[in-house]
Amino acid sequence: MSAESGARLRALSERAEARLDAVLPAADDTPERLHQAMRHAVLGGGKRLRPLLVYAAGSALGAELDRLDAGACAVELIHAYSLVHDDLPAMDDDDLRRGRPTVHVAFDEATAILAGDALQSLAYSVLAGAPLPAEVRVSMLACLAESAGAPGMCGGQAIDVEAVGRELDLAALKAMHARKTGALIRAAVRLGALAAGAGPQRLGHLDHYASALGLAFQIKDDLLDVESDSATLGKTAGKDAAANKPTYVAALGLDGARRALDAELQSLHRALSRLDCDTSLLATLGEMAAQRSH
Amino acid sequence: MSAESGARLRALSERAEARLDAVLPAADDTPERLHQAMRHAVLGGGKRLRPLLVYAAGSALGAELDRLDAGACAVELIHAYSLVHDDLPAMDDDDLRRGRPTVHVAFDEATAILAGDALQSLAYSVLAGAPLPAEVRVSMLACLAESAGAPGMCGGQAIDVEAVGRELDLAALKAMHARKTGALIRAAVRLGALAAGAGPQRLGHLDHYASALGLAFQIKDDLLDVESDSATLGKTAGKDAAANKPTYVAALGLDGARRALDAELQSLHRALSRLDCDTSLLATLGEMAAQRSH
Repeated sequence: MSAESGARLRALSERAEARLDAVLPAADDTPERLHQAMRHAVLGGGKRLRPLLVYAAGSALGAELDRLDAGACAVELIHAYSLVHDDLPAMDDDDLRRGRPTVHVAFDEATAILAGDALQSLAYSVLAGAPLPAEVRVSMLACLAESAGAPGMCGGQAIDVEAVGRELDLAALKAMHARKTGALIRAAVRLGALAAGAGPQRLGHLDHYASALGLAFQIKDDLLDVESDSATLGKTAGKDAAANKPTYVAALGLDGARRALDAELQSLHRALSRLDCDTSLLATLGEMAAQRSH
Repeated sequence: MSAESGARLRALSERAEARLDAVLPAADDTPERLHQAMRHAVLGGGKRLRPLLVYAAGSALGAELDRLDAGACAVELIHAYSLVHDDLPAMDDDDLRRGRPTVHVAFDEATAILAGDALQSLAYSVLAGAPLPAEVRVSMLACLAESAGAPGMCGGQAIDVEAVGRELDLAALKAMHARKTGALIRAAVRLGALAAGAGPQRLGHLDHYASALGLAFQIKDDLLDVESDSATLGKTAGKDAAANKPTYVAALGLDGARRALDAELQSLHRALSRLDCDTSLLATLGEMAAQRSH
């Protein structure tokens, strides 16, 4: 990563954090416990990959950051709610997230369910209030709701829940991840592009970029689960293998998964090369997704 | 209820059921279990009060039913998701809903959490795709998201969770219900009115009507919990008292609660009398909310 890209991404990450802080309900407003749980789930951690993708895609196409804040916040609120619910005892039963207690551990299960639900609603509230033409807001709302729901993230998560302890072939594994993590990553890029008024050709190239990045991100996730330790990850390492979950490492072997990661990285750079604009931030985010240590 | 109002409401209820069936994902599409759980949660039961309010408010103001379907479905999808999550073991731990096993009993807890989440997303997808001007859709989306989230339903539910075993005075009880059940009932009326292009004065009268109806509905709910049995209710009777939940009956006594119900019913008729249009369906729905047996 160039020093310039690094500094720009750090500034954008701080911008996302500040905007999220502003749209979340105040911790001392009634009901305090719900609001505190929502803030715990969203603030003070995370890579902010999805908001950064909104900013990077939108500003590559010339949009002012003010037009991108709502999309950046909305996609991160959806991501944060999904983590709160995924961590619940009936789902992955995780105690640790981003190096801190998960919401149902820090608060309680009922509050975690409600906080996740309220974060999902807030995502759409924020988008509905964006300083953008109504037609653009509706396109963004439709994109986010479809990516978050049964056709996207929730559907992928349900396939994952059903697949525990079963063999998934590579095609089924890819189809699962295209929904479970891929749909929201593609939505992030698309929200930025829609806010910037992108036409169908640029949307197409950006979709290719986002699909490759989503796959790279997931393959790296699976690699980290076997290569890293809980302290570095900020969540429990080795959980996938222990739970007998289908992963790219299980399907392709360690070397095969690393080669698949390289192939996706090349594919995302090819997609960017077809956009006639400054895609340096998008390229850096692709490399970060593939080379991160947590 | 006049025979004519009854027949119109039955036809609208069937219309809502058919539209919900059409927007829900097919039971035999992947992931089947998630889709079946979503359909179980929504179809084949329920009073459809909220969709009927959308249709009644919108058609009182002259809107075609085609313009009201999306709002009717969206508000019912939000209501259905909230019931799925409320019934979870970590929340109300209910096994029975509308006379049938709750979603986490008929399926499992993880599927119930995900089905609720996906139903919420679907509500916004449906609204975003409504055959209405983008400006109107954005207003409706903003209204629904705010009513469903921390400022509305989720916030009220969180206050309720925190209040179990504690005394709530009448003002606190009203404030809780204004969010927990009132917000979505007000949203239903507002969605119909917005789809019909209502101006601020009519929106104001309809808000008064909806607030009174929401209160009447909740007071009746509390009365039914002590007056009825599980077979008639289609859910476990006597649960509120057993859980030491704050209710109107606990706060006002049985007679006091019945008088409060009458007062709200008068208030909702007064609000309707200020609208210069045919409000017979809205009046009938108000009476049904106050006089139902389940």
